[in-house]
Amino acid sequence: MEYSTSSLINSFQPKEKHTTLFNHQISARIRLATQLDVPNLHKLVTQMAEYHGLSQIFTTTETSLYNNLFKSPNPPFHSPTALILEISPNPFPQTNHTTTNFVPIIKNNYNFDNLEILDHELETYRSKFNGHGHDNSNNCNVYVAGHVLVYPSYNGFFEKPGLFLDQMFVRKCYRGMKFGKLLFSAVAMQAEKMGMGMVDWLVADWNEETINFYEKMGAHYIPEYRLCKLYGDQLQAFGKKSD
Amino acid sequence: MEYSTSSLINSFQPKEKHTTLFNHQISARIRLATQLDVPNLHKLVTQMAEYHGLSQIFTTTETSLYNNLFKSPNPPFHSPTALILEISPNPFPQTNHTTTNFVPIIKNNYNFDNLEILDHELETYRSKFNGHGHDNSNNCNVYVAGHVLVYPSYNGFFEKPGLFLDQMFVRKCYRGMKFGKLLFSAVAMQAEKMGMGMVDWLVADWNEETINFYEKMGAHYIPEYRLCKLYGDQLQAFGKKSD
Repeated sequence: MEYSTSSLINSFQPKEKHTTLFNHQISARIRLATQLDVPNLHKLVTQMAEYHGLSQIFTTTETSLYNNLFKSPNPPFHSPTALILEISPNPFPQTNHTTTNFVPIIKNNYNFDNLEILDHELETYRSKFNGHGHDNSNNCNVYVAGHVLVYPSYNGFFEKPGLFLDQMFVRKCYRGMKFGKLLFSAVAMQAEKMGMGMVDWLVADWNEETINFYEKMGAHYIPEYRLCKLYGDQLQAFGKKSD
Repeated sequence: MEYSTSSLINSFQPKEKHTTLFNHQISARIRLATQLDVPNLHKLVTQMAEYHGLSQIFTTTETSLYNNLFKSPNPPFHSPTALILEISPNPFPQTNHTTTNFVPIIKNNYNFDNLEILDHELETYRSKFNGHGHDNSNNCNVYVAGHVLVYPSYNGFFEKPGLFLDQMFVRKCYRGMKFGKLLFSAVAMQAEKMGMGMVDWLVADWNEETINFYEKMGAHYIPEYRLCKLYGDQLQAFGKKSD
């Protein structure tokens, strides 16, 4: 499964001025999503659904993202939580956080000899976040490149609870730059920091490259389980059942 | 995978007096687990781990069950939650609950022409629960026969959150009596009642009978996803990583 035809065509369009933003260096930051990220998050999950050929079942709206991610009274990682991957041609300021539940992960100045990034959506993915010491002018060069969605999980066979990694996505033009590994590590480190016992997720069986990636990270690939899902009319029918 | 050898031998031992408890009728109730159920719940999840050949990774203790199921400030179904299946030769009293988050599901007087139940663990599974109008004397004939574990889940492609069904188990001597269907329906009805959009769970690919059971209940079997799990030393290693 790949991007829709229109996206593929976009990939082969000639370079635009924005390419030069990341000539030789790129900096990355992973931070907790805020309400300001909802429009960008919605674009990301929409693109991910297209990538997985799941647009037909896709019902997420900006409102539903806001309701599911930001209305819980629980602190982050105790209810559905999003992390945002940002990139910038400028280094991100290092910050000390003693009050937040997630210390941003910053990797400044990745060096790439031939860094040619054709990001045709650069402007629409400009980061709306303005915290952690960025002033407005600097923030103009910060863009959203990916995300993860996680929520607390529990397996009755294990002593400790865990995190379920529902989604991990890096926009196509930023792949192959180890940002997936950075996002995955952020989740695993957070689970470990919280004293949890596991991180679980699902991977498509046709996605060998990704399966290899996960196994290199130390994950156990468990071939025997299959996902079952009850939703839509079939779920609603249970609301009317009396026996 | 089946029960351990010792359990199989037990199954072929001669009838005991307790068999007569359920001569022609059996009543069932599904209710929220309480702290008093922890010892019985621990026996149930231990048996389920044996059934799935997962005793090697099993680390659950009574303390961990208590911590994971009963220490959350969240109401039931907003954090890991257990439902208990009880059976009795006597009908359960119908109760009106306006204050609880889960109205017990009661099915009194199932009729079976040839109800021969060899429950060699009957005494150890005596229910410790004493609510909902049962007085102590009546409660003597209430036994725990199974359980489900669920927790709130979220899928970024769906508008509404859901329930993840982590475990569903009916003790061997009570199988084939539609108690699994009753437990599953309880979860689906609860999700629907809470305005959720889905119930998800995993099933072993060798378990054709169970897969058929779920598909009859209206579930979608999604063959392409595989479970990945990071735990133990591999997870702990991420706590020490800096890059």
